Amino acid sequence: MPPVDRRAVVDLLGVLAYAELTAFDRLAEDARLAPTLGGRAALARMAAAEIAHHVRLTDRLSELGIDPANAMAPFVSALDTFHESTRPSTWLEGLVKAYVGDGLATDFYREIASFLPDPDRALVLDVLADTGHADFAVREVRAAIAANRRVAGRLALWGRRLVGEAMTRSQAVIAENDRLAELIVGGTGDLTGVGRLIQRITDAHTERMKTLGLNP
Amino acid sequence: MPPVDRRAVVDLLGVLAYAELTAFDRLAEDARLAPTLGGRAALARMAAAEIAHHVRLTDRLSELGIDPANAMAPFVSALDTFHESTRPSTWLEGLVKAYVGDGLATDFYREIASFLPDPDRALVLDVLADTGHADFAVREVRAAIAANRRVAGRLALWGRRLVGEAMTRSQAVIAENDRLAELIVGGTGDLTGVGRLIQRITDAHTERMKTLGLNP
Repeated sequence: MPPVDRRAVVDLLGVLAYAELTAFDRLAEDARLAPTLGGRAALARMAAAEIAHHVRLTDRLSELGIDPANAMAPFVSALDTFHESTRPSTWLEGLVKAYVGDGLATDFYREIASFLPDPDRALVLDVLADTGHADFAVREVRAAIAANRRVAGRLALWGRRLVGEAMTRSQAVIAENDRLAELIVGGTGDLTGVGRLIQRITDAHTERMKTLGLNP
Repeated sequence: MPPVDRRAVVDLLGVLAYAELTAFDRLAEDARLAPTLGGRAALARMAAAEIAHHVRLTDRLSELGIDPANAMAPFVSALDTFHESTRPSTWLEGLVKAYVGDGLATDFYREIASFLPDPDRALVLDVLADTGHADFAVREVRAAIAANRRVAGRLALWGRRLVGEAMTRSQAVIAENDRLAELIVGGTGDLTGVGRLIQRITDAHTERMKTLGLNP
């Protein structure tokens, strides 16, 4: 692997820190769609976990002598647009987004993190580790489908829309950021490697849709 | 002190658990009013701390064999009404609410907690311990006032409105809940004791307003 541009590391920490902050916002907002106090608390707990990750990433940026706000700034618009265009209108759509959307993002960041030198690779992989909250979303969605089969069709469409938007937005981010693009192409070796990376992410997405009981 | 009705303990844990959940919601919402990414992250961190407290309280309720949702239910309407009627319209109003409003609530719950038997007394006092986030609100508000003296007058009115609403709502909750009323009167000894409790809470509120640079 070629040596990694230190600024690409900063970019990755920056985009991830802002992604965690928006994930917090969105989960906190979706918590209010919960039909029960227990569900509301469960989503609030997921949101809190994201903020803990955000703090670890911004602490690392500060340690590197970088203002976290500056590192996040280039990615604010793309991530805000993604969330605006995929705003859940129901509790179940929110859960599918929490599970399928975050799963997809996590896989993507994890692939890129593997190209980083330590300690940043270890930090990112640790921050991305499943906090165990995914189980809650899976349980709720499966129960809703068991109670009403027609729910599955609508949620499957929603899941496909999420993956489409996520792919479009992440391609736009990479196209505008040469250092991240180089990090990915350099890390995977060549364009065939990039293709395999996308295939792995898509396969994992398909598995998650199946886990929810949705047609991928 | 008279022995404490176990159901009063459950009531206190319940109201406090719901208070932490609504505090989370409100801080998460106000975070979006932040003028900077740093401010937004700071409020999100405060929100996350509230959820950690919520979890400790609901865990204790479950341990007592009580469904947390049932314990919280009697207090949902009063707390929601309080937050609806004191929704900040600016970032600074949100910070004053986070500092002055939460400070007031904390003092009140801490007074009541002192009447509880352990381990619940220790749990509540621990959950109410300052998470150090208050400093952030104080710093931001004082800086805003230093930059523009006229801000102070408006925020002082807002602080007085917060304390008025908080007093009205908490009296309504206690008036409707005989067990909590007995816990307070029994714990303070008599009505003179209740008067002294209210005086202590009011004095601490006055101090917090002064700390912010606001006329109490």
